[in-house]
Amino acid sequence: MKALVYRGPGNRAWDEKPRPALEKPTDAVIRITHTTICGTDLHILKGDVPTVEPTRTLGHEGVGLVEEVGTGVANFKVGDPVLISCITACGHCDYCKRGMYAHCRDGGWILGHRIDGTQAEHVRIPHADNSLHRLPPGMDPAAAVMLSDILPTGHEIGALNGAVGLGDTVAIVGAGPIGLAALLTSRFYSPARIIMIDPDENRLVMARRLGATDIITRDPVDAVMALTSGEGVDVAMEAVGIPESFDVCQRIVRPGGHIANIGVHGRSVELHLQDLWIKNVTLRTGLVNTNTIPVLMQILEAGGVEAAGLVTHRFPLDEMEQAYDVFSQAAREKAIKVLLAASSR
Amino acid sequence: MKALVYRGPGNRAWDEKPRPALEKPTDAVIRITHTTICGTDLHILKGDVPTVEPTRTLGHEGVGLVEEVGTGVANFKVGDPVLISCITACGHCDYCKRGMYAHCRDGGWILGHRIDGTQAEHVRIPHADNSLHRLPPGMDPAAAVMLSDILPTGHEIGALNGAVGLGDTVAIVGAGPIGLAALLTSRFYSPARIIMIDPDENRLVMARRLGATDIITRDPVDAVMALTSGEGVDVAMEAVGIPESFDVCQRIVRPGGHIANIGVHGRSVELHLQDLWIKNVTLRTGLVNTNTIPVLMQILEAGGVEAAGLVTHRFPLDEMEQAYDVFSQAAREKAIKVLLAASSR
Amino acid sequence: MKALVYRGPGNRAWDEKPRPALEKPTDAVIRITHTTICGTDLHILKGDVPTVEPTRTLGHEGVGLVEEVGTGVANFKVGDPVLISCITACGHCDYCKRGMYAHCRDGGWILGHRIDGTQAEHVRIPHADNSLHRLPPGMDPAAAVMLSDILPTGHEIGALNGAVGLGDTVAIVGAGPIGLAALLTSRFYSPARIIMIDPDENRLVMARRLGATDIITRDPVDAVMALTSGEGVDVAMEAVGIPESFDVCQRIVRPGGHIANIGVHGRSVELHLQDLWIKNVTLRTGLVNTNTIPVLMQILEAGGVEAAGLVTHRFPLDEMEQAYDVFSQAAREKAIKVLLAASSR
Amino acid sequence: MKALVYRGPGNRAWDEKPRPALEKPTDAVIRITHTTICGTDLHILKGDVPTVEPTRTLGHEGVGLVEEVGTGVANFKVGDPVLISCITACGHCDYCKRGMYAHCRDGGWILGHRIDGTQAEHVRIPHADNSLHRLPPGMDPAAAVMLSDILPTGHEIGALNGAVGLGDTVAIVGAGPIGLAALLTSRFYSPARIIMIDPDENRLVMARRLGATDIITRDPVDAVMALTSGEGVDVAMEAVGIPESFDVCQRIVRPGGHIANIGVHGRSVELHLQDLWIKNVTLRTGLVNTNTIPVLMQILEAGGVEAAGLVTHRFPLDEMEQAYDVFSQAAREKAIKVLLAASSR
Repeated sequence: MKALVYRGPGNRAWDEKPRPALEKPTDAVIRITHTTICGTDLHILKGDVPTVEPTRTLGHEGVGLVEEVGTGVANFKVGDPVLISCITACGHCDYCKRGMYAHCRDGGWILGHRIDGTQAEHVRIPHADNSLHRLPPGMDPAAAVMLSDILPTGHEIGALNGAVGLGDTVAIVGAGPIGLAALLTSRFYSPARIIMIDPDENRLVMARRLGATDIITRDPVDAVMALTSGEGVDVAMEAVGIPESFDVCQRIVRPGGHIANIGVHGRSVELHLQDLWIKNVTLRTGLVNTNTIPVLMQILEAGGVEAAGLVTHRFPLDEMEQAYDVFSQAAREKAIKVLLAASSR
Repeated sequence: MKALVYRGPGNRAWDEKPRPALEKPTDAVIRITHTTICGTDLHILKGDVPTVEPTRTLGHEGVGLVEEVGTGVANFKVGDPVLISCITACGHCDYCKRGMYAHCRDGGWILGHRIDGTQAEHVRIPHADNSLHRLPPGMDPAAAVMLSDILPTGHEIGALNGAVGLGDTVAIVGAGPIGLAALLTSRFYSPARIIMIDPDENRLVMARRLGATDIITRDPVDAVMALTSGEGVDVAMEAVGIPESFDVCQRIVRPGGHIANIGVHGRSVELHLQDLWIKNVTLRTGLVNTNTIPVLMQILEAGGVEAAGLVTHRFPLDEMEQAYDVFSQAAREKAIKVLLAASSR
Repeated sequence: MKALVYRGPGNRAWDEKPRPALEKPTDAVIRITHTTICGTDLHILKGDVPTVEPTRTLGHEGVGLVEEVGTGVANFKVGDPVLISCITACGHCDYCKRGMYAHCRDGGWILGHRIDGTQAEHVRIPHADNSLHRLPPGMDPAAAVMLSDILPTGHEIGALNGAVGLGDTVAIVGAGPIGLAALLTSRFYSPARIIMIDPDENRLVMARRLGATDIITRDPVDAVMALTSGEGVDVAMEAVGIPESFDVCQRIVRPGGHIANIGVHGRSVELHLQDLWIKNVTLRTGLVNTNTIPVLMQILEAGGVEAAGLVTHRFPLDEMEQAYDVFSQAAREKAIKVLLAASSR
Repeated sequence: MKALVYRGPGNRAWDEKPRPALEKPTDAVIRITHTTICGTDLHILKGDVPTVEPTRTLGHEGVGLVEEVGTGVANFKVGDPVLISCITACGHCDYCKRGMYAHCRDGGWILGHRIDGTQAEHVRIPHADNSLHRLPPGMDPAAAVMLSDILPTGHEIGALNGAVGLGDTVAIVGAGPIGLAALLTSRFYSPARIIMIDPDENRLVMARRLGATDIITRDPVDAVMALTSGEGVDVAMEAVGIPESFDVCQRIVRPGGHIANIGVHGRSVELHLQDLWIKNVTLRTGLVNTNTIPVLMQILEAGGVEAAGLVTHRFPLDEMEQAYDVFSQAAREKAIKVLLAASSR
């Protein structure tokens, strides 16, 4: 079969590889029908994630059809259309029992990281019963594939960790895929305002379309303070992963407010405890647990979230390399999420 | 009357001052019977809190008797024994209505800061109905004065902000007055272990007596990891106010854990987001709201907390300067809280 | 001035009465510009609320202008446009400090009950600082008057007590004013479905317009079970006040679900504990605290709730009796809320 | 092997039965070392639980050693000492993923009910990974067996459902095994008072020893009101299962308070909504999920709960019938929990 293979920093190829087989009774093998590329995949390609070894198939998002199931799989059978969670969960370790699948003792984020991933024609999914979700009939797969990672991450690590509440003023620093996913899912909780901050005006146009009430391209701290009569925001979300955007968050959060860090950071940041100690603020970080995938799927089915609106580009699965080329130049290409679809058979 | 007056950095005196009078209908004047000294008072004396102007009477903790009440005071009458909250709350601004008294638009921490405080024979308390608490008959005033600030701070900013829960492993960095108050109040929620960390062995002896299950004097990160089989702690509390102790907290907290910052910080700290972004941790900061004073008073009355156990030294009120001398040398004097009591009349 | 006076069971009149005056420093007198009639007012007229004495002016909802303020009122001044809360809160008793204004020791529901109410040209409001809310400039008073009681009740006693959550299936038994307010405010929390149950088809038409996803006119238990594949609903709300509608709620709630009782009941109901003990259900009751009025006002200002959509009939203030005639025949007149507006001067 | 077999209403025997074998790869077989009898077993014997068919081995509590594991069991191996949860959880259905193991689609309360139970020399446990808990070395098995059902039920359905909080006044109606377990576990949350209500003075002596602050033998409503200055209690727990004791709960709960129903009811009760609608009370019911077994085990290991204090009588396993005779006459025999222990081999 074909797969997008990491060959070391800066080097990738859509290569022939052996098709994966069941290894344990709790495994399933899925034929990929739809997948997409995440910013994390670009980080891996840069060599920023040393735990990924050359020859690894990348990708942790996908929709497909069950091809094979182990004898220990109870929830799925061959032919079932499924959504793949970016997080693998054994379902019976101490962390899984507390719903903290991100920290599963025999899973967590392993797809396209420690085991072969979803940017391929077939993928093996360990602990299938707790790592796959049946797709309802008729669900648009372009929308569904947004449920593998980006929507649950925006929801759990953005909206829920930020404790977005009724009437709140929310600011999201970064209007890339994850910032927009945080925007879409924050709207579930009826904040009064959502301010999107990004230097890229194209992204802010999309942010407006997806429900932002205010947009800011520069001088974000002053601009937010002006918009909020100097009070600051109830919720500030960091959706970039650099010290500068984290700094904006800590300067605009009001007393009693929340900071949700969604960005993946490569270095430490300066935390202004001399100002914040007295402000009764809450800062949360996290990798997604994906335990809200089922409810997000219900909402998607009920028409309550424009998930497919994040998809800007579509490619056949075997144009994976072209899709990477476009996504790597997201600003120039005005790309948010690129969808790859296998030709139907 | 006599009062402890701040005369500028490094300079204080037990001076004669005019007795305070009612200024607004919602004021009360209290005759102080018991007061104490807080670490913050020492910071002010060093000149670290520039919002405190010379001639200010210091002190924000105290117990006393109501001497005068304004026409707008409903809850109290002359002669009532009362506890003074370190936080003044108007009760009708937006923050007060949300229970965030620390950020009251016409109050917050003003006693011994922006208005004259409690280290005096008499003190004026604004918004008396929401800033005083009636003492139950027979309550030990040495215990009660711990409810003005240190116990609610340990409770709200330590135990509650740290979300101390049943069976948790808690580590408290700093076994001074506030760390010990956090220890005492964390026990309300039945953690399995409370690890106290401090270089001062005398303080750890007291920590043991007040319920610590483990004590650490040095190499705290390694020591905590050894005690927890490498898992880290559910709750880490910073109870010193310096970057080093904050750093310990972020290194020992486990995935899904909580950091509660109680210390008053004078400068920024380095936050290791490159490690923490993936750990699903929650960091909270805050100034006490004191809205748990009523329930703490019930617990104290029911014998459920050894509040008076924090008092190591006792002085007559007019030996205020000697009390300051002792408290300024807390380590040498083995002092935790010093109690000042007016001679009864 | 004129006021709607209760003269004993079955007897009311738009009568001349003395204009109210300040009685305490914390009082304000308001000139009513808009008011409305509540189902509770009809109960009083029937004689069902014996604590209401003849000569009482009815009404606990209203918008107006501040005419006079006592010396102890800090938040308001003459001329301010204000919303009157149906609940009077002193702000400093034990219940008020816990946010339970409904049980204020010197307030609660007293307007149009134990003291004269808002269906009059002027009304005295005790504890004005905690019982009035400033209207933002430009707010539609027809919408605003829905914030006195019906929207906060639907929100707090319906949506919040029912713990309406993302993706939930909600059923509301009764599509009268309070059921529709529960519908409008449940939508803040993005349930997947809201099923409205009422025998009156006119009301269900309005329910559809306000966002119901499903409507049921009869055999509600069977119909709900059919709609939910036999699983039942996450949240069932009783919005009528009779045993039959409560019974529907307990039969349709799923394991782990919530029942919110909003209706005012005159007699006991049969609770099927033989079925429910094992179902892990939560039942909540309550009188509104109105502590969500500020956030509802923000939402209303941001265009997030169609409050004025509940108003079906409008009258000048001095046609109060005609308004009562219409509201008393709500089904025949297709009335939900009737608005009374004073002629502007 | 020997097992306690239900032979139809009023008829039981310690009979020879075939030893259970693995049926699915996720099963384990346990050799019972300790078990106990639950009030529910007596209900079954009376014929009150028609879903239990004759020939069923009773019992849903137990401690033992793993004898056999299926190929799909990951957490346990032969020889492991384990605690058996009274609730079987598949770990991958929708209810299990939400932590609601009581409503597992392929489990819940099935042991000694729909499949053979623990009052036997050996028992088959389905879904072993999610239904067993490893015993820490050195744990007293008499204490541990209290973790199968009674302590988690007291904790989850009593203390947690009742939302027992710091400083609360709690009343528990019924001082039998489950009421006492609710008492022991309520203490984790530091209520100020725990009032135990039971006509049996022997039980109240034990309640006192286990931490009750007040005891009541008769006229409970008047007595509670007298003890609480007419305010009522924050939390009322029903731990009997009859209308009369439920009635006490609804009469003594204060505004804003909680009622936790722990009792197993055979018929409906009268709910006084005409009084309760305005009182802002919360009523919760439920079958235990046992998801707090791990934390209770930590607490037990740390010495934080006197679980073994509930055991009043001890028998060898093969004196099962005598143990039933004693437990069936609990009041006369002053029995709370009877422990059965296999002779060690």
